[in-house]
Amino acid sequence: MDGTAAELLARADALAAVSEEPGRLTRRFATEALGRAGELVAGWMEEAGLAVRRDAAGNVLGRLGDPEEPPLVLGSHLDTVPDAGRFDGPLGVLAGIAVAGRVQARGLAPSLEVAAFADEEGARFGVPYLGSAAYAGVFEPAWLELVDDEGVTVAEAVRAAGGDPDGLVDVPSPVLAGYLEAHIEQGPVLEAEDLPVGIVSAIAGQTRAQVTLEGRAAHAGTTPMRARRDALAAASEIVLAVERCALDAEGLVATVGMLDVEPGATNVVPGRARLSVDVRHADDDELGRGVAAIRRAVDAIASARGVEHAWVTRQAMPAVEMASTLRLRLASAVSALGHEIRSLPSGAGHDAVVLSRVCPAAMLFVRCAGGISHDPRESVGEGDVAVALDVLERVVAPG
Amino acid sequence: MDGTAAELLARADALAAVSEEPGRLTRRFATEALGRAGELVAGWMEEAGLAVRRDAAGNVLGRLGDPEEPPLVLGSHLDTVPDAGRFDGPLGVLAGIAVAGRVQARGLAPSLEVAAFADEEGARFGVPYLGSAAYAGVFEPAWLELVDDEGVTVAEAVRAAGGDPDGLVDVPSPVLAGYLEAHIEQGPVLEAEDLPVGIVSAIAGQTRAQVTLEGRAAHAGTTPMRARRDALAAASEIVLAVERCALDAEGLVATVGMLDVEPGATNVVPGRARLSVDVRHADDDELGRGVAAIRRAVDAIASARGVEHAWVTRQAMPAVEMASTLRLRLASAVSALGHEIRSLPSGAGHDAVVLSRVCPAAMLFVRCAGGISHDPRESVGEGDVAVALDVLERVVAPG
Repeated sequence: MDGTAAELLARADALAAVSEEPGRLTRRFATEALGRAGELVAGWMEEAGLAVRRDAAGNVLGRLGDPEEPPLVLGSHLDTVPDAGRFDGPLGVLAGIAVAGRVQARGLAPSLEVAAFADEEGARFGVPYLGSAAYAGVFEPAWLELVDDEGVTVAEAVRAAGGDPDGLVDVPSPVLAGYLEAHIEQGPVLEAEDLPVGIVSAIAGQTRAQVTLEGRAAHAGTTPMRARRDALAAASEIVLAVERCALDAEGLVATVGMLDVEPGATNVVPGRARLSVDVRHADDDELGRGVAAIRRAVDAIASARGVEHAWVTRQAMPAVEMASTLRLRLASAVSALGHEIRSLPSGAGHDAVVLSRVCPAAMLFVRCAGGISHDPRESVGEGDVAVALDVLERVVAPG
Repeated sequence: MDGTAAELLARADALAAVSEEPGRLTRRFATEALGRAGELVAGWMEEAGLAVRRDAAGNVLGRLGDPEEPPLVLGSHLDTVPDAGRFDGPLGVLAGIAVAGRVQARGLAPSLEVAAFADEEGARFGVPYLGSAAYAGVFEPAWLELVDDEGVTVAEAVRAAGGDPDGLVDVPSPVLAGYLEAHIEQGPVLEAEDLPVGIVSAIAGQTRAQVTLEGRAAHAGTTPMRARRDALAAASEIVLAVERCALDAEGLVATVGMLDVEPGATNVVPGRARLSVDVRHADDDELGRGVAAIRRAVDAIASARGVEHAWVTRQAMPAVEMASTLRLRLASAVSALGHEIRSLPSGAGHDAVVLSRVCPAAMLFVRCAGGISHDPRESVGEGDVAVALDVLERVVAPG
């Protein structure tokens, strides 16, 4: 326990070995693998002198300082997408632990909480931030009934993981001094400008929807082309329309990441298809226009093909400004350490979106190689991590 | 046991209740459900006075008459696609049993074999005709190593189902007098012309391939649209190109029935996609031109998007003429029963394709409602089945 960047990278390696599946890193909400990752983190928190507890959602929390004084929270999440990298999430948790250890080594005990959230990606239940929402007291009761691919509900999964579904809803929001999250950039800006860290100005708004298409399953050999109502052909047009809408609007990104086909046999014209749509923009008006354009395209495509469709908005998050007070403290620390101050928006959502509903929230981005994320090749440099730890330490306890 | 159409329909209902999954009919090769269907059929064969045996692939076979005399085989298959109808396959098997019973009731015992094949659809291993190919002695050794979605090989599945993988290969083809298969049309022609049955002229040639696309998985929020190598966007263009090629060529049908995406998360740009392509035409030259056009489109799309791709041809079946001798016997029976003789090609593949490699083979199509097949709404009329049974009986034992 020395609070160095080298130690942090070694711990990220250790966490990366804790997965639901052999050979690749997948660690979704309320799985056994996430539980084991939480135990590792709890051990490191204790080493760092923090008082550790787990909340009803399985978030792992380490507390320092006067329990009566609202804490500054340092944190991020431990869950991952399927086949993930090792820094998206764990970097912010491990940085919080390292900084908590460092300030104590200086004889200080500011009111601080390190938070390791159990769900940010939403990879298991299709809705993100289940962990941080529970922590912030903004968990929606309807989420308890979401089901995963095996038909397991959130309530059942939380209970099976040792949590308490009844403790997720109708709980008061905690009183917090602020929330500060270190995270890899997951984009190419800092690398292109040769900067170790950046300060997030705002987090892009995001709309996630599920589109269901109902055509008619039919024999692939005997059904004439013009008599078909092919759900996959309709879905394919939609995938390309989503891409086209984003290419046509500056700053908009839109993605179909999931597509299921039924019955899914080589010799049957698909009767049903289900796909996800994820649309983001740092400006809410632009986001709204992009989503509207995509919905018009979906309507037109389904109608032209005689395929019935349903659009269900699963999430509609407005863009979130980061708190100016914390941004100024980050900027002052970055500057004091001799680095250039660079502000940039975040195209990805983060737990800071949720925490910003209950306290001032800000984020520090760390340069990552090639902008690659959600991929095993996700990588950060030890020197950049060292800068980030120094910045966070100065914000928590100015030299 | 009375050999009527009503009895046949009741038996088809009983078979439809035997499925891998509750609530819908799915009965793939070498599953426990297929085994139970085989037991039902074996019981009816015994009732009909046939000597029943099971071969190494799990085909159920019922024999009548002089064992030294090459039999005329009446049959079809018991396996189904996922969420299937109840007549595609079982109709031909049950018709064979009914006819075998009828001729014995007339005091006759012609050399006859009723065959219930264990695989025609290829829904489990992606290659069709595993059952009839084993029966005909043309099973390819490489097929033993095909794997299903759970990683189980054909050899393992056959053994688990009580069959003998070693008995599938290097076995001599049986000496057969001919093969006659009754089957629902699975198309709209007989219904449109108000005819109960039709005689198949030829079975369309068919090419099945699997296309794999390898792009780059990336974060859906932070990866600019122009920096993406989206495997699903490439796959979607291919789906539409396959459709376009078929629309552009008279008589060609082409289908993408299966599409898988990896990692398949809502917030990750897809890095990999895998899709099936099924192309059919009654003329081999036209089929070849269609497949070539699709392959050119796949090459161009993948190349334009910087996505790597592989095309693996899983099956390339030329068109198959039905045997003129048997077609004439069918035509003469149809005519003698007072019905119009109608010849038509089959857009779908059938076990008759495989059997035609070892003996004269022919097919009798039975009108089906709306041309609907590979769907729970698959339906035939009792009167049409009665005509089909009368025709087959006359071919087997002219009045």
